[in-house]
Amino acid sequence: MSDQIKYVLDEENIPKSWYNLNADFPTPVPAVLHPGTHQPVGPSDLEPLFPMELILQEVATDRYIDIPAPVRDIFRMWRPSPLVRARRLEQALGTPAKIYYKYEGVSPAGSHKPNTAVPQAWYNKQAGIKKLSTETGAGQWGSSLAFAGSLFDLDVLVFQVRVSFDQKPYRRALMETYGARCIASPSTETDSGRAILAQNPDSPGSLGIAISEAVEVAAKNPDIKYALGSVLNHVMLHQTIIGQEAIAQCEMAGDDPDVIIGCAGGGSNFAGLAFPFLGLQLRGGRSRRIIAVEPAACPTLTRGTYAYDFGDTAHLTPLVKMHTLGSTFIPPGFHAGGLRYHGMSGMVSHAYELGLIEARAYKQVGCFEAGVQFARTEGIVPAPESTHAVRCAIDEALRCKAEGKAETILFNLSGHGHFDMQAYINYFEGKLVDQDYDEADLETALAALPAVAA
Amino acid sequence: MSDQIKYVLDEENIPKSWYNLNADFPTPVPAVLHPGTHQPVGPSDLEPLFPMELILQEVATDRYIDIPAPVRDIFRMWRPSPLVRARRLEQALGTPAKIYYKYEGVSPAGSHKPNTAVPQAWYNKQAGIKKLSTETGAGQWGSSLAFAGSLFDLDVLVFQVRVSFDQKPYRRALMETYGARCIASPSTETDSGRAILAQNPDSPGSLGIAISEAVEVAAKNPDIKYALGSVLNHVMLHQTIIGQEAIAQCEMAGDDPDVIIGCAGGGSNFAGLAFPFLGLQLRGGRSRRIIAVEPAACPTLTRGTYAYDFGDTAHLTPLVKMHTLGSTFIPPGFHAGGLRYHGMSGMVSHAYELGLIEARAYKQVGCFEAGVQFARTEGIVPAPESTHAVRCAIDEALRCKAEGKAETILFNLSGHGHFDMQAYINYFEGKLVDQDYDEADLETALAALPAVAA
Repeated sequence: MSDQIKYVLDEENIPKSWYNLNADFPTPVPAVLHPGTHQPVGPSDLEPLFPMELILQEVATDRYIDIPAPVRDIFRMWRPSPLVRARRLEQALGTPAKIYYKYEGVSPAGSHKPNTAVPQAWYNKQAGIKKLSTETGAGQWGSSLAFAGSLFDLDVLVFQVRVSFDQKPYRRALMETYGARCIASPSTETDSGRAILAQNPDSPGSLGIAISEAVEVAAKNPDIKYALGSVLNHVMLHQTIIGQEAIAQCEMAGDDPDVIIGCAGGGSNFAGLAFPFLGLQLRGGRSRRIIAVEPAACPTLTRGTYAYDFGDTAHLTPLVKMHTLGSTFIPPGFHAGGLRYHGMSGMVSHAYELGLIEARAYKQVGCFEAGVQFARTEGIVPAPESTHAVRCAIDEALRCKAEGKAETILFNLSGHGHFDMQAYINYFEGKLVDQDYDEADLETALAALPAVAA
Repeated sequence: MSDQIKYVLDEENIPKSWYNLNADFPTPVPAVLHPGTHQPVGPSDLEPLFPMELILQEVATDRYIDIPAPVRDIFRMWRPSPLVRARRLEQALGTPAKIYYKYEGVSPAGSHKPNTAVPQAWYNKQAGIKKLSTETGAGQWGSSLAFAGSLFDLDVLVFQVRVSFDQKPYRRALMETYGARCIASPSTETDSGRAILAQNPDSPGSLGIAISEAVEVAAKNPDIKYALGSVLNHVMLHQTIIGQEAIAQCEMAGDDPDVIIGCAGGGSNFAGLAFPFLGLQLRGGRSRRIIAVEPAACPTLTRGTYAYDFGDTAHLTPLVKMHTLGSTFIPPGFHAGGLRYHGMSGMVSHAYELGLIEARAYKQVGCFEAGVQFARTEGIVPAPESTHAVRCAIDEALRCKAEGKAETILFNLSGHGHFDMQAYINYFEGKLVDQDYDEADLETALAALPAVAA
């Protein structure tokens, strides 16, 4: 059909391996450092937290890493995800551009996060682990790990940022439906949590605090490992099935994207779509514009510093060289909970430093405006995080209109917003504002970065 | 792949026509009667409410009715919907049965309802109508018509049962995201609503009251037509794309269902899956067990009377011969809002009277138990309505296990439960109980059925 909308691959076309951009970067990503010694961490340093297979993936430089058959088997529940031509949005914009989106909201948990939750759960299961701890903010990651745990009979313990725990009971209910246990963070179950509560019994929590609690629980208990839903190399690796499928689907559609867009919090959905295309380019293929979109209120790439920093508040994690706003930075309240992290994937940061990708920061009201336009044309209500990618895709399509260019735009619609409707209610009621971060707070947080010899 | 999970058809395999069981029933469905004269209604009687094309479909006896190209064009946004083999559920049950489900939750509104909302909106648009009125309880139908309205630039006015309006703000937000206007019913905008409010200013509303309000608005305003999401013949007709796709997908899978299951409120998702299979049987094909599942607290088929009754509380609608609990019957509070209607599709009722289908009533706690088991094996959290079909499919699979029979079971997973998580919260907190209807109330409601000469 010449005017096809969905490009759907058969189950056998789920990629058989993950693509590792670390094989093709012109210079290597800086090593992760031990927080005490500032020396590169070895596998044994990470063993309290992760199973060895994931640690090896974290440092791997092989271009392709096989996806275990049982993991591919699970992926068949929702993958390959569709590539969709946004014909009705194009018509509404009157643009000569073609707009495609890769839709990751078809997963059981409603986002791209199960792409890494399932293999992480599987490698832990293979290592004999019975229980995983993790943190979640808005809940996309927590519900994805809860889903993955239910598939492999793993207990999952989720430290959920208290303000989300209280304000998003439906996302918590989803985690509990999958059998996970949710704890409001800061909690009394960890030293990290108790220390925060001693200072401020009414602490609303933060992702950095919740990470500290989840890491502490794993570090102190040999039966429990930790799982992280973004930032780390193996998470970027696992998400590359998105981009690999998209490359095959763009071929089906007979189109080749000129612009590739993803929202970026820790960087995983962006990397998942972009890295396989970037790999083609680094191996001699054509160059494309690749744009990471972040919230103006937490502008890690566009305003942060490229430096070694901790991943958490209590400074229990290794040091990663990344674009960071400082581990003590607290962004103002806004609705894209998945984009509120102070740091950025080391691999995404490295790509940015090398000039391989662009970055752009958007305020939230314009993003929700784009999300509503998308819902009214394409039918899908985007997650608040994903509205950032929608906004950028619309802006690029309008640029094409102004310039009279028929470019092809591809963006990652990383999830649906069914569990985030309060944000849309606030938008319709005019209660959403474009809060900016506090410049003085940011300066303080950046001044507090750990001193690491170059 | 021999162990395939999803059976997905290409967009060109979306059915080109709807299947009309009225062409194959051995005896015709009793005529719809005018509420005043008790004579069969003619097209002109229905003209204040519906565009002529839908009225003609309501009385059509053609076996196939073409789906307009622009409607099929919209369907390509999410159709064909997948047929999924529930392999992990089968394994968890240890059954020799094969379990398949047709998943209608992939639509933008999350249920099967857009299958009829889109053609209804389109036929109204073709007739020059600018505005549609409707009612909704839990909100599946209201959000589907809101979605369809957004596609064709139609204003949509939704009278939402007040208790749902207050308790389900996220579903309302979805309707508003699609651009619809929601009004809590009973409202002060109609005579029907004002009459109820005069008696009881705190009325929680009911579907019957909301229908009265939506019908009144359309009847009194030539620019507004009414749209109904179930019960009527043309709605059953539109939903038959589900079963037609399922027949093709079962062929792909190399299986032929022995048991076909759907939950039934007004009957549309059940009919959508079942009627095309029933048509094969009536034209000489093999017979299958076809089971309609309803809530024990609103047991229209299993406890209601087969009689002429009104569709609404204020008695503004025509009289339909159907299984009914009486238009004044109010079921006890339970969570499957879409199954709380007092009546049942005339076509489904007729099939039941002819012994072509079975009916079964389930209590809600066991349904949610089934829903949670489904979520933990198949990943998808079912809508409360759909958990009734899941419960029945599990029970049939366990019967197969007990009897050592490798039957093939097919059920309709009519929607996801993302907007119904409060029901799951209540279930986990042990707050759900198996409320029964009040037998005396039911007797009173049945005694009040309109007297219609045979």
